[in-house]
Amino acid sequence: MKLPLGYRYASTYAGIRKEKKDDLALIVSDTPAAAAALFTKNRVCAAPVILSRRHLRASHWTARAILANAGNANCATRTGDRAALAACRAVAKHLRAPIEQILPASTGVIGVELDPKIIPNALPRLFDRLSADGFPDAARAILTTDTVPKMAFGEVPLRSGAVHIAGMTKGSGMIQPNTATTLGFLVTDAKIPVAALRPMLLKAAERSYHRVSVDGDTSTNDTLVLLANGASGIAPTAKERMVFEEVLAWVMEDLAEKIARDGEGARKLITIRVTGARDDGEAARIARSIANSPLVKTAVAGSDPNWGRILSAAGNSGVEFDPLKVDIYLQRVRVCHNGVAATFSERELKQKMDEQECVIRFAIQGNGAGETRFWTCDLTEKYIRINASYRT
Amino acid sequence: MKLPLGYRYASTYAGIRKEKKDDLALIVSDTPAAAAALFTKNRVCAAPVILSRRHLRASHWTARAILANAGNANCATRTGDRAALAACRAVAKHLRAPIEQILPASTGVIGVELDPKIIPNALPRLFDRLSADGFPDAARAILTTDTVPKMAFGEVPLRSGAVHIAGMTKGSGMIQPNTATTLGFLVTDAKIPVAALRPMLLKAAERSYHRVSVDGDTSTNDTLVLLANGASGIAPTAKERMVFEEVLAWVMEDLAEKIARDGEGARKLITIRVTGARDDGEAARIARSIANSPLVKTAVAGSDPNWGRILSAAGNSGVEFDPLKVDIYLQRVRVCHNGVAATFSERELKQKMDEQECVIRFAIQGNGAGETRFWTCDLTEKYIRINASYRT
Repeated sequence: MKLPLGYRYASTYAGIRKEKKDDLALIVSDTPAAAAALFTKNRVCAAPVILSRRHLRASHWTARAILANAGNANCATRTGDRAALAACRAVAKHLRAPIEQILPASTGVIGVELDPKIIPNALPRLFDRLSADGFPDAARAILTTDTVPKMAFGEVPLRSGAVHIAGMTKGSGMIQPNTATTLGFLVTDAKIPVAALRPMLLKAAERSYHRVSVDGDTSTNDTLVLLANGASGIAPTAKERMVFEEVLAWVMEDLAEKIARDGEGARKLITIRVTGARDDGEAARIARSIANSPLVKTAVAGSDPNWGRILSAAGNSGVEFDPLKVDIYLQRVRVCHNGVAATFSERELKQKMDEQECVIRFAIQGNGAGETRFWTCDLTEKYIRINASYRT
Repeated sequence: MKLPLGYRYASTYAGIRKEKKDDLALIVSDTPAAAAALFTKNRVCAAPVILSRRHLRASHWTARAILANAGNANCATRTGDRAALAACRAVAKHLRAPIEQILPASTGVIGVELDPKIIPNALPRLFDRLSADGFPDAARAILTTDTVPKMAFGEVPLRSGAVHIAGMTKGSGMIQPNTATTLGFLVTDAKIPVAALRPMLLKAAERSYHRVSVDGDTSTNDTLVLLANGASGIAPTAKERMVFEEVLAWVMEDLAEKIARDGEGARKLITIRVTGARDDGEAARIARSIANSPLVKTAVAGSDPNWGRILSAAGNSGVEFDPLKVDIYLQRVRVCHNGVAATFSERELKQKMDEQECVIRFAIQGNGAGETRFWTCDLTEKYIRINASYRT
């Protein structure tokens, strides 16, 4: 897949995380790019989230670079603001760009001081390595307990040529997007004005990042950024923007699904489809309630077709529906019909549930047009093992 | 502790659960008792919940007996209404009481048919065993994956003599009270009119059952009943009722704490105290958000003083507060001061966290008078093991 034009990427090990694995990533646009971003709604915000928000306002939503580190969330720290600012200042100097065009982002442990010198010291090395094909390196450097890098790519064929979209993200734990999740960086070489970029990101997030949850915990550092630098020279027309928006959503759905598939300790990707709700919002609330039920997630881990827990979790969503009009499918097998057990072979279904992907369909009969797709993962003993000793 | 006068209890094995352990409990008041009750707010309600509600309305909030079974929730079943009704009818016949004075309750797996004959067939045995000291037997019969029976007792010394309160409950999984949780039965021999009984139960529940969560899942069968049969001959005066209410709350707090302590797979009781919120409701929302964070619960399981997760979970509660005014204590050691790390010996604190009880204090500085106490438990690998194979 072709990468968007006009961007360079790099990663290095700055010494932030204990394990010697790259922990600092840089994404640079050759020219100032239009930027849109969504941030965590957690009342407790990390320093880089606060600074990125301020920079975007000051730069009128343009950006030259994203600087992201893993291993330290730079949240609830004494020197947090200073460390984030020092890092941005150093990047701005290297690029000879205004500091407002640098967007910092961090992920990792909360409440541990981040040495303000550690990132500036690593920057010369990082800039030396900048290259147009460094995308996978940067994608790897932002990971924490993720087991695989998460990237997705899209091509948008337009009348005057193709523009490209590339996205990277990290997932694993403390994942329940609320306006945005975790770290997600998207770049495109399409020429799109700032005013049009933000609604596009919002709409695509609604279908993707806002439809995934690993453990129902929203992080203090969630940052989702979309840059459009126009390096392709192609400006989609108003009509073409809808095509662009669709491809952007695909790329983000791909990333969201990858987050769920690689959730902390997960063995199985769970895709939840809800249909027949009164509107998409209610469908999403039902789906989220099912996705966040530890009883549903452990049942899937044990390949146990315990659909009663799915029905009960839906009943806790706060959405009104008639339980006697609900059908539930597991792996395309109907396990519940009109709110009570359907006839199915438990032995065969258990075998199907041993697969690495589990599909739950929650269908409310009637005229409701509300539907959604939601991703999560099973809850395994490994999640507990990872999180009982995350810092130690 | 003396039991309230005028009640008899029994239990037997009716054959509802696979394991040969008593699964049917009966509580009988010698005379019709004033009754108050709270039920689940889950949109999906078990048949016995629907029937108990109906019976209470029809009997003008009086009851002669509570019939509870474990091993089958009698929820999302074809024959659910019929099975619950048949059981109540048989009890009513034995007691020569109106059917509306019999309150059914069930707990166990959802979506599995309950044979309508199985409970009536066991009733002769159950009635044979009725005795004034059968309270612990009944308390044992309502358990599911609980490891210990849960009982609490209270004595209320009043001017004209003492009245008594006895309570039993079950807990373990699918526990997050929303108006009521799980099964909880309270009996007293005080003479209290129906109109006064309900607000008492509500107020006491607010301090107890509504302040406990094991896994954030609200069951389809939650039923909390308080019976007052007046067998002591003592009617508390309006002023004395406040004393009664206080003792009732203590008994229910005791039960709620026991539920958290014996949460599915739990090794540790976690008590969360929130102070300095704007009101008690906001304090409770912060506490619940901390209690339901799997990342907080796994950190406690691993004796990891990862207070950043506590701060982040509080930030997700939807309550507005200034993170820079927050102090967090673990086992009475201040780990966070003004929103950043305090100085403490990590090694010593880890040792203290190895104890079976963990106390988290979340203190917002300032003038806020809102506070609460909330109970939960740690999240261990055993929770996963139990729930990955609950039905099999």
